[in-house]
Amino acid sequence: MTISPLAPASFPVVPMISGVRFATVEAGVRYSGRKDVMLTHLQAGTSIAGVFTTSATRAAPVLDCQAKLGGDPSGEAAIIVNSGNANAFTGSDGAEAVTNICTAVADTLGIAPQRVFSSSTGVIGEALPFEKITAKLSELKEGLSPGKLKGAAEAIMTTDTFPKAAGAQIDIDGKTVSITGIAKGSGMIAPDMATMLVYIFTDAKIAQPDLQQMVSAINDRTFNCITVDSDTSTSDTLIMAATGASNVDVTGNADFAQALETLMLDLAHQVVRDGEGATKFVTVNVTGADSEPDAKRCALSIANSPLVKTAIAGEDPNWGRIVAAVGKSGAKADRDTLSISFGDIRVAENGWVSPSYAEEQGAAVMKKQDIVINVDLGVGTSDATVWTCDLTHGYITINADYRS
Amino acid sequence: MTISPLAPASFPVVPMISGVRFATVEAGVRYSGRKDVMLTHLQAGTSIAGVFTTSATRAAPVLDCQAKLGGDPSGEAAIIVNSGNANAFTGSDGAEAVTNICTAVADTLGIAPQRVFSSSTGVIGEALPFEKITAKLSELKEGLSPGKLKGAAEAIMTTDTFPKAAGAQIDIDGKTVSITGIAKGSGMIAPDMATMLVYIFTDAKIAQPDLQQMVSAINDRTFNCITVDSDTSTSDTLIMAATGASNVDVTGNADFAQALETLMLDLAHQVVRDGEGATKFVTVNVTGADSEPDAKRCALSIANSPLVKTAIAGEDPNWGRIVAAVGKSGAKADRDTLSISFGDIRVAENGWVSPSYAEEQGAAVMKKQDIVINVDLGVGTSDATVWTCDLTHGYITINADYRS
Repeated sequence: MTISPLAPASFPVVPMISGVRFATVEAGVRYSGRKDVMLTHLQAGTSIAGVFTTSATRAAPVLDCQAKLGGDPSGEAAIIVNSGNANAFTGSDGAEAVTNICTAVADTLGIAPQRVFSSSTGVIGEALPFEKITAKLSELKEGLSPGKLKGAAEAIMTTDTFPKAAGAQIDIDGKTVSITGIAKGSGMIAPDMATMLVYIFTDAKIAQPDLQQMVSAINDRTFNCITVDSDTSTSDTLIMAATGASNVDVTGNADFAQALETLMLDLAHQVVRDGEGATKFVTVNVTGADSEPDAKRCALSIANSPLVKTAIAGEDPNWGRIVAAVGKSGAKADRDTLSISFGDIRVAENGWVSPSYAEEQGAAVMKKQDIVINVDLGVGTSDATVWTCDLTHGYITINADYRS
Repeated sequence: MTISPLAPASFPVVPMISGVRFATVEAGVRYSGRKDVMLTHLQAGTSIAGVFTTSATRAAPVLDCQAKLGGDPSGEAAIIVNSGNANAFTGSDGAEAVTNICTAVADTLGIAPQRVFSSSTGVIGEALPFEKITAKLSELKEGLSPGKLKGAAEAIMTTDTFPKAAGAQIDIDGKTVSITGIAKGSGMIAPDMATMLVYIFTDAKIAQPDLQQMVSAINDRTFNCITVDSDTSTSDTLIMAATGASNVDVTGNADFAQALETLMLDLAHQVVRDGEGATKFVTVNVTGADSEPDAKRCALSIANSPLVKTAIAGEDPNWGRIVAAVGKSGAKADRDTLSISFGDIRVAENGWVSPSYAEEQGAAVMKKQDIVINVDLGVGTSDATVWTCDLTHGYITINADYRS
């Protein structure tokens, strides 16, 4: 698999988080010759929040995680994730596999099963060979170490072409608080949420309900604003764990929330940059909308339009397709107040092509790797931003030729 | 352009309609070396009904047609259509071009401008060189003839790979009533409606309001149930003209309505069969839904899923992607009551793969050119059917490499 042309130059340097240890192993769930299971151990008292797919056909581990959120946080906790098999639409056997895995992890680590959170990603509808995972738990336990974050980011990959991580450190009253996150996801990406697994760790101190509220709100402005192909997964999971090891309380702290949002947006953008077959990173800004839902609806209509996405792939400044995407979105719009710009280049206004616009200007913008589409509906004051990638032959090749 | 592998073997034999004459011409609006304008003349008293795109950025000719519907039907009428330029998002100049064209047609034929309906299809956002069309009106008038339907179907094509027509004759009380229709459309196809132009003619006698009601209802079950790429056009237009020349009144006639529905479904299927890059014709049946809107929502979610469509392109019986599409649709669904079949092959039921299912069975179905996906949600009694095609490299090539 060729690495996405939109990938960061290198895996980032991120802070280790006190109270968090990682281990990975080759369990052979589906893939061979690569690590496919990661275990995270979290110190006693860690607050755990989560956001999950809204799919009506959610996978068994998602249902299990949702049931466990908000439980007694006093004991140690663990997260176990496998790639290759999503354990989705696997009937009652799927739920049993989750129970078997979580119980075995709990036994191995000497913690409560209610504190073990699991995720699975990969093919849907095939039985998860959970024994391959449970057989490796002793080895995983032996390997637990605070520095193995990159390996964890690699073990959870499916069609991803690069491991994804982001980190931040904030000074709060002279004390340092650290946040580090990893993510996977490159196809079946759409709100709510993307086909993604995201795990974020911090040594900040914050009670579970406060953490949950903060993460849910930020998720709406980050992972729920990206789309690769409009398809939503049955397995989307974001888990955030706050160990409290720094002893710095961040309840309601705006600096912490801002740093977390920046980090989550960074991870969300990395997911788009690894969009299946992507060659362009596209930001769609909609302003002047009648309401916030209208702004987001319009932005997503543009970002999900196959005709817009193929035009971008072909470096064609085909703004007529953006007009069509605005028109079909259902958002309140008026041809004569609509204006469209590619970056700083005003393309269309007052119901027609801008008098100052020359096709060569648009074509020059389209040759860039990062493209910004600005649409002002001119009917109100609400706005929204979403991020997407182009639709290329690479997407077809990945999804028509391989079962994923 | 290679003809779609899903095209009918030949252009159908269709009845000529008394009171309707066609002419076509090479006007060079955008294309060269092919006919790109068609004129239809309709005898005095013809009832004219129409269904149009719901896009908020509708093209100028659409707005003009909508304003003219339901006017005095006593005089002769005309339909003028050009391909190559959609006259959409062309500001006030766009509306002026429509007025200029309709007035010139009216003058040439000696009829009222209010009885002239126009359509334009092709590129968005470029000024329509209407003089190229008006310069050819005398030639078009001279050429009017009842037998030139195939030429008309060809003149309105854009990225279509074959001309589309369908015909029907019904015996009503010993008298023959005929219906003939033509259509164009192969990309930007989605409810409501598809990117299509459709013109249907009958010698039946029926008042405009009755015809309008019949056409609107049937449109909901035909053209509004097809999708190629989820993109809705700014120019979609369906016009039906009833000349009354047969002197057979079909008001409220169920046989006529049935024949018209069959004909409209035939044309709608031809549009899907000419979907850009299509290699498979896909029928999605959803049953057991909680409501009709839920059934249609679920069927369209499956039919528009890029992951489902690429799996079909790859002849991969990847029913997990159908589960995911059901889950994200927003329709009421329950993993454990959901069942999925490919044609007669039961694939999934009771929340998991069917015990009788073997992958070879699904793979065999996927090798066919016409594929039926049956989904029973098991939560109610409503159903819906939609039609779509697969998503292939051909779609990307057509839309990334050419401005259309």
